[in-house]
Amino acid sequence: MADLNTDNPIITLTTDFDLSDNYVGILKGIIGGLNSFARIIDNTHGIHKYNINSGCYSLETSFKYFPRGTIHLAVVDPGVGTTRKALLIETADFYFIGPDNGLFSFLHGKDIKRIISLKNRKYFLKEISSTFHARDIFAPVAGYLSIGISPDEFGPKINKMEKIKSNRIRRTKAGLSGEILHIDSFGNIVTSFRHNNLPDGSFMVYLVENKIGRLKKTYGSVKTGKPVAYINSFGYLEIAVSSGSAADDYSIDYMSKEKILIATS
Amino acid sequence: MADLNTDNPIITLTTDFDLSDNYVGILKGIIGGLNSFARIIDNTHGIHKYNINSGCYSLETSFKYFPRGTIHLAVVDPGVGTTRKALLIETADFYFIGPDNGLFSFLHGKDIKRIISLKNRKYFLKEISSTFHARDIFAPVAGYLSIGISPDEFGPKINKMEKIKSNRIRRTKAGLSGEILHIDSFGNIVTSFRHNNLPDGSFMVYLVENKIGRLKKTYGSVKTGKPVAYINSFGYLEIAVSSGSAADDYSIDYMSKEKILIATS
Amino acid sequence: MADLNTDNPIITLTTDFDLSDNYVGILKGIIGGLNSFARIIDNTHGIHKYNINSGCYSLETSFKYFPRGTIHLAVVDPGVGTTRKALLIETADFYFIGPDNGLFSFLHGKDIKRIISLKNRKYFLKEISSTFHARDIFAPVAGYLSIGISPDEFGPKINKMEKIKSNRIRRTKAGLSGEILHIDSFGNIVTSFRHNNLPDGSFMVYLVENKIGRLKKTYGSVKTGKPVAYINSFGYLEIAVSSGSAADDYSIDYMSKEKILIATS
Repeated sequence: MADLNTDNPIITLTTDFDLSDNYVGILKGIIGGLNSFARIIDNTHGIHKYNINSGCYSLETSFKYFPRGTIHLAVVDPGVGTTRKALLIETADFYFIGPDNGLFSFLHGKDIKRIISLKNRKYFLKEISSTFHARDIFAPVAGYLSIGISPDEFGPKINKMEKIKSNRIRRTKAGLSGEILHIDSFGNIVTSFRHNNLPDGSFMVYLVENKIGRLKKTYGSVKTGKPVAYINSFGYLEIAVSSGSAADDYSIDYMSKEKILIATS
Repeated sequence: MADLNTDNPIITLTTDFDLSDNYVGILKGIIGGLNSFARIIDNTHGIHKYNINSGCYSLETSFKYFPRGTIHLAVVDPGVGTTRKALLIETADFYFIGPDNGLFSFLHGKDIKRIISLKNRKYFLKEISSTFHARDIFAPVAGYLSIGISPDEFGPKINKMEKIKSNRIRRTKAGLSGEILHIDSFGNIVTSFRHNNLPDGSFMVYLVENKIGRLKKTYGSVKTGKPVAYINSFGYLEIAVSSGSAADDYSIDYMSKEKILIATS
Repeated sequence: MADLNTDNPIITLTTDFDLSDNYVGILKGIIGGLNSFARIIDNTHGIHKYNINSGCYSLETSFKYFPRGTIHLAVVDPGVGTTRKALLIETADFYFIGPDNGLFSFLHGKDIKRIISLKNRKYFLKEISSTFHARDIFAPVAGYLSIGISPDEFGPKINKMEKIKSNRIRRTKAGLSGEILHIDSFGNIVTSFRHNNLPDGSFMVYLVENKIGRLKKTYGSVKTGKPVAYINSFGYLEIAVSSGSAADDYSIDYMSKEKILIATS
């Protein structure tokens, strides 16, 4: 069971709300009102709008850097107010709270202790809107969990949760073909290749028909303005332009279907 | 009198400063230096530049979600350094600090206990600039208030404050005509209709000449890419495009004067 | 020696990471895991990408507004993973942590107590990537420093650090010629003139060939939409458009080489 720090637990927030509205502030007001010792940390609110894959990548690559017992609240929720379930998931080390739409797919195959379907209105706001469950359900549940309310109090146990498709590497005649997983604010392009999906020997990386080069160590391994491929700090193959933006230089955006090609040679 | 939590009070910040400069960081440094137990929470710094209406909507829709005794510091201040007054307002449950330019108009008719004109330089920074009173006056006043300095210490009581116009619904031949109050980062268009301004029976919502439809429950009540009108989670009539952006699809921006029409039929 | 508040020290973050990815959240997770009482404050994450001058201006103008003992962690690091050193700098009142690339140039000539080259892997994450030293080195060092680990523990003392060029004012036939130092989110243009670089008598400010006017007190000193020059709240000559954007009106961006001219007359 995740060992919750009830003295001053960390609650992280991951959403596609952006910071330009008051939505995130309101979540913090509700949590802060329930637990005056909670440390509320923004993981990010820059998830691409409605993009569950993007939210999944962001959570998957950051949750482990928080201390044991951290509560991760995540909301990318195009189906809010419909029949999709609301979840509290407990793993060996962490809690996760959010909608049941595949956002927590990276937890499949991991050590999940229990999945709770959030049902107990005692721990929600009094009035539940149809469009802002982050405020009305998820934030208060995180607040109550952080002061020591038992997970089982929030609703019945369930056996499974939604999962997004993630088979994103294919073998082709030319080599291996992967996809774009994320583009960060530097214009760095994260691909779906993990370090352990790559060939053993030397290989060449292409972005569509553009030759990027062989694997390097870091941005500064090439000259300013030149493209560079390397394993990013989370273990994924990434393509950047040194002191520039690969996304701009290759006209790639987040929804691009362009392929990344790995050619052994 | 607002019951200030002097153990670890919440101070919220609402500005049009954006987060891309160090202005907000500096406010937190000053407050954190005066009160090492204050919990400083960003309501939002994405208020449309110089737009007092936008600041007013943001504060009005979020202040109640914070616990009793919260200090709300708000700065949208095109008149900084001129003769506009600086205010501390106390209501039954909250404190508000900021410029006297209508930003706190939503408090008119509410239970205002006292309005203080901030004058006592003892609680300001030593040097007062003409362009950054958030730093020189409002942040230190919030810090001192949060450690228990009495409101009356900061300056004399005054009887009134500025108010912005807000009569934003008109009866026309075709039905009711309202205005755009806010556009959020999803491209959702908040209108000036509150749920209690709407006709009792069935009605049709139009954005200028575009038929949006009858009232629905939530985004997912229509297909992806389709427009939808609903009562938002703060009680206002809002227009969205499911998993899209209504502002983009109808080429509406924040300053648009386009009308929203409610036609009973 | 900087008097560190080990009860609940402030650690500020200044980066060019933006908030749209999870990078900043991860730094806070690591620091929060090492010190559950640290108060982590974003100075800003909006430093122009790879722009060390921009980071330097942001730090220089904000660090003093934080209480004595504050740890300032700053990362604008195009050379990450190359041979550039990693630093901990102690001044009379503050600590600074970040890459040795000129980011801390404003400290030259100030009261520097010691400069440490960060070498001791005991205080780094176990695995050091080549592209994210903010996570692997700087954040954990800030966390350990904040709980009282002595600066000397982190590595050997060194005698100097990198410095960026900053001779940005020239005397010309027409008067004094300066440069653009920063453009803020309001479109206000900060110039390289400090108040003590300006002529004693009356003078006229030009942005390239555009006459801005004589020095005024604040934005509201001119009519809405009109340009205005004034000493900003940090002591620099700044050019704005009242309730508008000087950067937009004069088509100036951050990398503009346009000159600001001061003509005495």
